[in-house]
Amino acid sequence: MVFIVRTDLERLCACIFQALGIPQEEAEDCAEILVTADARGIKSHGVARITRYANGIRAGLIKGGVTPRVLHETPCSLVLDGEGAMGLSLSKRSMERVIAKAREQGMAFCSIRNSNHFGIAGFYTEMAAREDMIGLAMTNTAALGVPTFARKAMFGTNPIAFAAPGLEGMRFSLDMATTTVPRGKIEVYQREGKELPPGWAVGSNGLTAQDPRSLLDTMIRRQGGGLLPLGGAGETHGGYKGYGLAVLVDILCALTSGGVFGEAVRDSEITSARVCHCFMAIRLDILRPPEDFKRDMSRMLEALVSLEPAEGASRVYYPGLKEQEAEGLSNTQGVPLAEDLWQELTTWANVLGVALPSVQAVPEP
Amino acid sequence: MVFIVRTDLERLCACIFQALGIPQEEAEDCAEILVTADARGIKSHGVARITRYANGIRAGLIKGGVTPRVLHETPCSLVLDGEGAMGLSLSKRSMERVIAKAREQGMAFCSIRNSNHFGIAGFYTEMAAREDMIGLAMTNTAALGVPTFARKAMFGTNPIAFAAPGLEGMRFSLDMATTTVPRGKIEVYQREGKELPPGWAVGSNGLTAQDPRSLLDTMIRRQGGGLLPLGGAGETHGGYKGYGLAVLVDILCALTSGGVFGEAVRDSEITSARVCHCFMAIRLDILRPPEDFKRDMSRMLEALVSLEPAEGASRVYYPGLKEQEAEGLSNTQGVPLAEDLWQELTTWANVLGVALPSVQAVPEP
Repeated sequence: MVFIVRTDLERLCACIFQALGIPQEEAEDCAEILVTADARGIKSHGVARITRYANGIRAGLIKGGVTPRVLHETPCSLVLDGEGAMGLSLSKRSMERVIAKAREQGMAFCSIRNSNHFGIAGFYTEMAAREDMIGLAMTNTAALGVPTFARKAMFGTNPIAFAAPGLEGMRFSLDMATTTVPRGKIEVYQREGKELPPGWAVGSNGLTAQDPRSLLDTMIRRQGGGLLPLGGAGETHGGYKGYGLAVLVDILCALTSGGVFGEAVRDSEITSARVCHCFMAIRLDILRPPEDFKRDMSRMLEALVSLEPAEGASRVYYPGLKEQEAEGLSNTQGVPLAEDLWQELTTWANVLGVALPSVQAVPEP
Repeated sequence: MVFIVRTDLERLCACIFQALGIPQEEAEDCAEILVTADARGIKSHGVARITRYANGIRAGLIKGGVTPRVLHETPCSLVLDGEGAMGLSLSKRSMERVIAKAREQGMAFCSIRNSNHFGIAGFYTEMAAREDMIGLAMTNTAALGVPTFARKAMFGTNPIAFAAPGLEGMRFSLDMATTTVPRGKIEVYQREGKELPPGWAVGSNGLTAQDPRSLLDTMIRRQGGGLLPLGGAGETHGGYKGYGLAVLVDILCALTSGGVFGEAVRDSEITSARVCHCFMAIRLDILRPPEDFKRDMSRMLEALVSLEPAEGASRVYYPGLKEQEAEGLSNTQGVPLAEDLWQELTTWANVLGVALPSVQAVPEP
C-alpha cells in the first residue's frame, strides 16, 4: 500500500485525463470524483478505473469537450443526450443544474441517455445534501443481473444513491447496487478458488451457481446466467424485490430519457456501456425548516450508531458512516492505493509525460 | 373460500365503516382500497384488517371526518398532520392533491405525519400511473426490523411502492416491504411448527432466530430481536442495503413531516401505530412524450415475461403482474375470501345492523 496526498493524487489524475485529450475543467472533475471514491475506501470505483476510461477515450467511445444535447427541459426537469461524454464530469454538471432548478422550483429531476460510467453515485447525492436538499442518483449499467425465476441477464447492478443532511457534516448517504454482489466479487472468488455462497448468482439453467469460473465464462459469452438481485434466488428471501428495484432504476434512468435499457445495455470489448443516469433534488425548506430536519436526522443517526451490537459484532453503522470515516483518515494520512495500482498510474504518467507526486510515508498503524 | 361480487363487498365494507361513525365518502374510499387488496390477492392488507380498524375507531385512535392540518405548502409540496385520521381515505385524498399539484408544476411531493395504517401502498402509486405520471408511495410502520449488526428493532417493514404506466392498462407496479418478510410470515411458521430459514430474523442476541415462538415472544415484550432487512443478516447477502432502504423510507415519511420515526413507532394494544407516509408524482410529459415512454415500458415488460424460465420454474413475472391477473379474475368471479374472514365480516354486519350481500357460487376450478 502507498499513501498519496489527496490533492496530489487529484492533480496527477487530472493531468493524465488532460494528456488523453480531456479539457482541463472536465479532467479536474473526473479526478475529483475518482479520488473521492478511493479516499472513502470504495476502490472498485476509484482511480483503478483510469485504464478502462483511457481505453474508452482512445477508442473514441468516451468523449471530452462534448456539450450534451437538451432533449427536453421545463423549470423542474431536464432530459439530456450525453452523446458519449465523460460520465463523471457530465454527471457533476447535471447535478449542479438539478440543484439550481430545485433552488428555483423546490424540486427537480434530470435524466441522461447515452452517457458513460459515472463513478460513485453517492458523489452526486451529497452535492445536494450539502445544499440542504435531499439528493437521489441512479444509473443503469451493463446487463449482468437475472430476474427472479429467469436464466438470462436483463438488468445491471443498477445502483440507487440517496443522501440527506444532518447537523455539522453528519449525513445519511446510501449508495447501493440492487444486485446482491457486483461482478467483481465473483472474480475475487474465482481468483481465490472459492465456491460461491448461494444467493449470489445463477448459472445458465437459472439455478444456483457455485463455480465462479464457469459462471464468468457463460456470462462473458452471453450464454445465460448472472448475478442475483438483492434478496437472492426465488421468493424465499425476497429476490423479487431486488429485481423490482433494479427495473425501477432502469425505468427512471432509461425510459425517462429514451435511452438503452434492459439486456441491450452492454459493455464493449474495451470500455463500459453507454449508460443512462438520473438525478433528483428536493429542497428541505419546501417541507420543514431545514434545521429541524437536520436535527432529527442527526438524532436518528446517533440512535443507530449507539445501538448495542449483536453478539460477535463490534459496531452498528448507518449508511455512509464507514466511507465518511475512511475519508477523514485519507484526508490526514493520504489516500491509500495498492502497490500494483500505483505502478499502473506511474506507467500512465510516464507514457503520457505527466509528472508524478511524491509518495507519503506509510502512516503508523 | 367464498366469492363476493366486488361492488357488493365494497358496499358491505363501506356500510360497516359508516356504522362505526366514518362519514360516507371516507367509508367508501376505505372500502375501495381494502377490497382492491383482496381482489389482487394481497389478503394481509384487505378486509381482514377491518376488525383492527374497527377497534381503532371505537377506541378513538382512528378518527373519521378529520380535516388534516396543513403544516407547510408550496406549489409542488404539501406537508400534513393527519391528526389521527383514517389512513386509507386520507392517503387517497392526499395523492389526489399530489396529482393535482404535479399537473400544474410537473412534479410534487407530500408527506403526512400522525396518520394511520394506509393499506396497500400500490393503490396510491397506480392513481398516478393512470394519469400518465410516475407514482411513488411509502410509509413507516411499527418498529419490527433490526439494523445490520444490531439486536433491537429500529424501523418498520417500511414499504416502497413505485408505479409507471405502459400501453393499454399494462403497468409496472412494485410494492415491497424493505424487510425480508413481514411479521405475519413468522406467525405462519409458528402456527405450522416450522423452523425459520436463516436470513429472516434475529433473536435478542442479534443472531439468527430459528424458533418463531420464542422470537415472537421477545419481540412482543420488546426484549430485542426482530425481522431482518432485505438481504438478511450481516453483509454477505447485502443486508445493509435493505437496512438503508428502510431508513430511507423513514426519512422521506417522518423526517420530512416532523413525525414519529425509528423505534418510537409502535403499535398500541388494540390498533396500528400512528404512522407517517409520503407520496410523489412526476408527470411523464415533463420528460418525454408519454406515448413514447409507455411504448418502451410495454416493450420492457413484454421482454421480461417472455423470458425462458429457470429449470423447474414455470414463468417469469414483472412487479405487479400477479396482482393484476388476480384482480382480473376477481372482477369476473367475485373476490375470494376465506370462510372464517367471511364469518368475521358477517358478525360485524350483524352487530352493526348492516345488510349482507349474497355469496357467489364457487367458480369452477
